[in-house]
Amino acid sequence: MEGIERVTIIGTGLLGGSIGLGLRAAGWGGTIIGVGRRRETVERAKQLGCIDEAATEIGPAVAESQLVVMATPLGAFRAALDAIAAADHDRLIITDVGSAKQRVCDDAKLALPDPTRFVGSHPMAGSEKQGPQHADADLFRGRLCILTPEGTAAGEHAIATVSGLWRTLGMRLTTKTPREHDRLMAAISHLPHAAAALLVGLADRKNALGVAATGFRDTTRVASGDPTVWCDIFKTNRPAVVEAMNELIESLQDFRDMLADGQDEHVFALLEAAKGARDRWVEGEEA
Amino acid sequence: MEGIERVTIIGTGLLGGSIGLGLRAAGWGGTIIGVGRRRETVERAKQLGCIDEAATEIGPAVAESQLVVMATPLGAFRAALDAIAAADHDRLIITDVGSAKQRVCDDAKLALPDPTRFVGSHPMAGSEKQGPQHADADLFRGRLCILTPEGTAAGEHAIATVSGLWRTLGMRLTTKTPREHDRLMAAISHLPHAAAALLVGLADRKNALGVAATGFRDTTRVASGDPTVWCDIFKTNRPAVVEAMNELIESLQDFRDMLADGQDEHVFALLEAAKGARDRWVEGEEA
Repeated sequence: MEGIERVTIIGTGLLGGSIGLGLRAAGWGGTIIGVGRRRETVERAKQLGCIDEAATEIGPAVAESQLVVMATPLGAFRAALDAIAAADHDRLIITDVGSAKQRVCDDAKLALPDPTRFVGSHPMAGSEKQGPQHADADLFRGRLCILTPEGTAAGEHAIATVSGLWRTLGMRLTTKTPREHDRLMAAISHLPHAAAALLVGLADRKNALGVAATGFRDTTRVASGDPTVWCDIFKTNRPAVVEAMNELIESLQDFRDMLADGQDEHVFALLEAAKGARDRWVEGEEA
Repeated sequence: MEGIERVTIIGTGLLGGSIGLGLRAAGWGGTIIGVGRRRETVERAKQLGCIDEAATEIGPAVAESQLVVMATPLGAFRAALDAIAAADHDRLIITDVGSAKQRVCDDAKLALPDPTRFVGSHPMAGSEKQGPQHADADLFRGRLCILTPEGTAAGEHAIATVSGLWRTLGMRLTTKTPREHDRLMAAISHLPHAAAALLVGLADRKNALGVAATGFRDTTRVASGDPTVWCDIFKTNRPAVVEAMNELIESLQDFRDMLADGQDEHVFALLEAAKGARDRWVEGEEA
């Protein structure tokens, strides 16, 4: 965060609010400007201590900042990039928190006069809860943040600044191409989200929710996420999600056939392999 | 638990061990006999205070008991029922903890001389952890137990005894037909379990587990369950699970088509409906 005196956060919900709280908790001494479309929301974020200054227009809010973070749902990024472009200056570094990266990097290249000052970020932290009242200074601590500098041919200073932001919030960093990021997220986040929503719908149609227990609660937790946020994610990562859905459909058809045909040793092998893979992963995470 | 002085628990793993600990914690003063195939496992359950007496043969272990609970994986029930039948006496009430009920009730009717003393139970509590070392006196507290007395035309005394067992452990009770139970469980437990296992397999094949986060961890928690237990559940509830899998495949195909065709308002509506149904259910659970 060297040389950064003013940070602008566009969108002061759970993620944007947590960035503000986290910077403050880490002892960062600069000024945090929050931008929201609705005066009420952004003033609430200020009252909660997430930001120092509340604004409703992006232009003036980035004019004197050295770093701007787009933390709205993905659907608002394109308009935000245009507004940033209109107020751009050569000391401004730009990043985001979007869960899909190819489209965001492409949009940054189209919208910004100097896309090499944009570094795509995906801080992998969140909650199904929404709004600055659920913001948490430790939301990002210990979590993984994926950077996609290749997507905009980002410069060294930009990469160092954005890396510094996430490190200040306690995150671990890794770098992927936007395409690889999107393919991975489709597998471990977007597809499981769709499956959770569909499982809730199925159980609801069968009037089965009344007897659902803790397993169902965990399995479907993500389905309580904001539909606006998630619809934007599905739209933005459309091809990778469609591909992952086709693979899950195929897996389900195979499993159904095994079960229907009484190939129980194959059912067992599949369950055992899944347990093994998941247990190894959890152990690795906890190590 | 009136008139019950000795309870036999067949299978002293997580569930069986927790029944023992729970009875003790509730102040029940009778004797708890645990039966396990392996002397070592059942002795460990005794050392852990889950049971008072350790046995490896069902016959002698039920001869002087008034209540026996089958708490092994479902695949061991048929042999247990045969052993119970061989040692049966007219003061013995029999129940189980199986997650599928039609087959168990049918087997009880075939195996037992007097199936009206059998009451099918499904205490909806558990964990992906295994073994008596994870047994917990409060595992069942506040959870729902589904009884299926109709499946064996169970008698009043049997229903009262089995109800008393689960109430002593702090459970809420409800009654379903075995068929309805199995249909509901396929929707809220067995299908979500299969989906979780398949999602882990898919993410593993794509080398995506390294970037998986808390959402994936919750969504797939159940996939760390015992493959033997779960393979037995799938086998035992085969027709209802196959039916539910077909419905999920159809839902996924519809969702994929919506997304691929750019029908984003339908994607949004589906996510919004799922969130609504889940949030209402969670609120009801917490009320």
